Amino acid sequence: MNAEIIAIGSELLTPDRIDTNSLWLTEKLNAIGIEVRLKTIVGDDDLRLEEAVRDAVRRSEVVISTGGLGPTEDDITRKVFARVLGRPLVLDDAILDDIRRKFARIGAPMTSNNERQALVLRDAEVLSNPRGTAPGLLIQHDRALIVLLPGPPREMQPMFSELILPRLEKLSHGIRICKRVMKTTGLGESALDQKIAPIYGQYSNPATTILAKPGEVEIHLTAKSDTTEAAVALLDELAEKIEDELFPSIYSHRGESLEEVVGLGLTVKGYTIATAESCTGGLIAKRITDVPGSSEYFLEGLVTYSNGAKTRLLGVPQELIAEHGAVSAEVAEAMATGVKAVSGATIGVSTTGIAGPGGGTEQKPVGLVFIAIADDVQVEAKPYTLFGSRQEIRERASQIALDLISRRFLL
Amino acid sequence: MNAEIIAIGSELLTPDRIDTNSLWLTEKLNAIGIEVRLKTIVGDDDLRLEEAVRDAVRRSEVVISTGGLGPTEDDITRKVFARVLGRPLVLDDAILDDIRRKFARIGAPMTSNNERQALVLRDAEVLSNPRGTAPGLLIQHDRALIVLLPGPPREMQPMFSELILPRLEKLSHGIRICKRVMKTTGLGESALDQKIAPIYGQYSNPATTILAKPGEVEIHLTAKSDTTEAAVALLDELAEKIEDELFPSIYSHRGESLEEVVGLGLTVKGYTIATAESCTGGLIAKRITDVPGSSEYFLEGLVTYSNGAKTRLLGVPQELIAEHGAVSAEVAEAMATGVKAVSGATIGVSTTGIAGPGGGTEQKPVGLVFIAIADDVQVEAKPYTLFGSRQEIRERASQIALDLISRRFLL
Repeated sequence: MNAEIIAIGSELLTPDRIDTNSLWLTEKLNAIGIEVRLKTIVGDDDLRLEEAVRDAVRRSEVVISTGGLGPTEDDITRKVFARVLGRPLVLDDAILDDIRRKFARIGAPMTSNNERQALVLRDAEVLSNPRGTAPGLLIQHDRALIVLLPGPPREMQPMFSELILPRLEKLSHGIRICKRVMKTTGLGESALDQKIAPIYGQYSNPATTILAKPGEVEIHLTAKSDTTEAAVALLDELAEKIEDELFPSIYSHRGESLEEVVGLGLTVKGYTIATAESCTGGLIAKRITDVPGSSEYFLEGLVTYSNGAKTRLLGVPQELIAEHGAVSAEVAEAMATGVKAVSGATIGVSTTGIAGPGGGTEQKPVGLVFIAIADDVQVEAKPYTLFGSRQEIRERASQIALDLISRRFLL
Repeated sequence: MNAEIIAIGSELLTPDRIDTNSLWLTEKLNAIGIEVRLKTIVGDDDLRLEEAVRDAVRRSEVVISTGGLGPTEDDITRKVFARVLGRPLVLDDAILDDIRRKFARIGAPMTSNNERQALVLRDAEVLSNPRGTAPGLLIQHDRALIVLLPGPPREMQPMFSELILPRLEKLSHGIRICKRVMKTTGLGESALDQKIAPIYGQYSNPATTILAKPGEVEIHLTAKSDTTEAAVALLDELAEKIEDELFPSIYSHRGESLEEVVGLGLTVKGYTIATAESCTGGLIAKRITDVPGSSEYFLEGLVTYSNGAKTRLLGVPQELIAEHGAVSAEVAEAMATGVKAVSGATIGVSTTGIAGPGGGTEQKPVGLVFIAIADDVQVEAKPYTLFGSRQEIRERASQIALDLISRRFLL
């Protein structure tokens, strides 16, 4: 089966906006053996959208549009599809009631332009949108299955996964595509590739893609077969060989985030953790608490930017700061043991460094970060020289800290 | 003038590949007053490419394709454009010699499929490619200017900048495009649109686009004129009217982030700030310290997840937590005054709530968040009922907290 995606919205034709919905949809479609043959990105432009829809409906078995279902004048998707398919728009009272209820629940006045979202194409199936006001629509037209989805990913994704994917899966008998993502830290992209190219080079199925991101390198495997089981078996075979070669650089075997891996490890061991951050400014605490249920193992996080706060909250001696400077291994260690002591956590972790762009010196340049971890037995700080923007330095430092935790305590 | 971009290559229809060429081209085109009206992303697919080219040539003044000019069977761009435009491909001896020289220079054997790159459409202008083997082509066809560019950015970008842009600049009679972004919080997309649609509806230039993001709505204005000064004057005129109508919902007049606005306001007033976070888990501290130089006004941030930490670090009375629960206005206020007191900051801000997905009750459902701000004069906590995933609830809560700060102290 083949599909075609139409991304609608003038903002998608500006230099700063990427249509990421179609990437997500492509992944889901590929997984059930449906190929995306064409993507059109069109603005709130009646004539061009009409042409795009006309071509798509004629040539593709599945046509998916995203965006343009909202309440404003700009939102022309319903109107244009109605015209091309020759189906009038009718007001759906159930949807209108639902939109009214949503506004009532949040106590906001419902402006009249919102009524537009209750217009549906005749004989279309309404796809309810519990996360927003504009419902999606599903239309079977001649040989084409046409799906109109809202633009915001948080509304579009669950609607597609829950209401469309199961249906498409039934229609597309045949090839199954399975993917697996492994994540690594500590090895550069080319060093990693040199290690595993001799392994994955022997396989055309699964296909292997290597993707470098700040502080980590991902390995994506894609296997095709008649059944999901057979595709998974292909993945297992290649993944095991790669894992043997790259151990212990792999921290995630099934795409889990580093903070999830840390959380799982802490939970299994029954450990608790507390953070004392300077240059990362709360990012490590934020990432640890991104994980649902993290209140079970995360006790507290102290963002001690000022020297006074380091002394008062963590008990870092003023003289230590005076002697070695706030950005030093000694202060990092005192921060980690300090936060462990005051919180009563099993593990204390700390960062102190220069995220930039200002504040660097000859001896302590921008990018220098000390990261320390304290447990009941020992405390150790290590220096890291990180590159990139302020955000990237903070990202990388938090990545290293979480990776150190997962390694020292959890492997 | 308007343009249309066709990105060619099957790899651009996979989940992991984004067509970034078109973003770069859009920026260059917009800067000289040419609007991109449609983008098509098509694979190495003869029939679909033919349709895309046919539509583009008929409706657009400038048609730019990227990719598909290489030596392999997959590279069908020349062939398909030749067919649609009714111009035969002819072998260009000068190009062939040039390709032969390039191979000779690097000492590699030239395989015969490389000759294909010397085929050009009759009467096309050849765009030399010093950084690769495939030349680009420029064709004036009826009213349309058609440009075929290679796919690799390092070949495409200089070819476009050096050989195409100066020519388009002449054709577009010196139109200049300027943009402005305003950001708002506190109003929903449709409520905001209803307020300002009567204003921006009177202007076709600047064009107005409204963009909803979690916790905020952006207004993008795009003005065209003969000179940059005149375009800026158009922006100023409409922006002022919108600002009058939306005050005080607008927090950013030139695209600055909320944390930058907060930082600027604190700096101007000479205020300092400290945070006490429960459900946001460090996100507010992280956002405040995202801004370079934030160490001047950010003193400390306490992530007090456990009740013990709230009592020990912030002085929140145990009895208060026992009586009202950790998620309550009373505890939020005690946290804000507590962190203000212990840190000595001018402003204390706190959050306590239920980010979910677990932990909600009938009385205190997931999404209930109390946010408090304390200054020298008063402390006030307000309840918010936020929706969305755990991440979204945390995002929205941090957005509201920063917005409250910018409003209470900075306007």
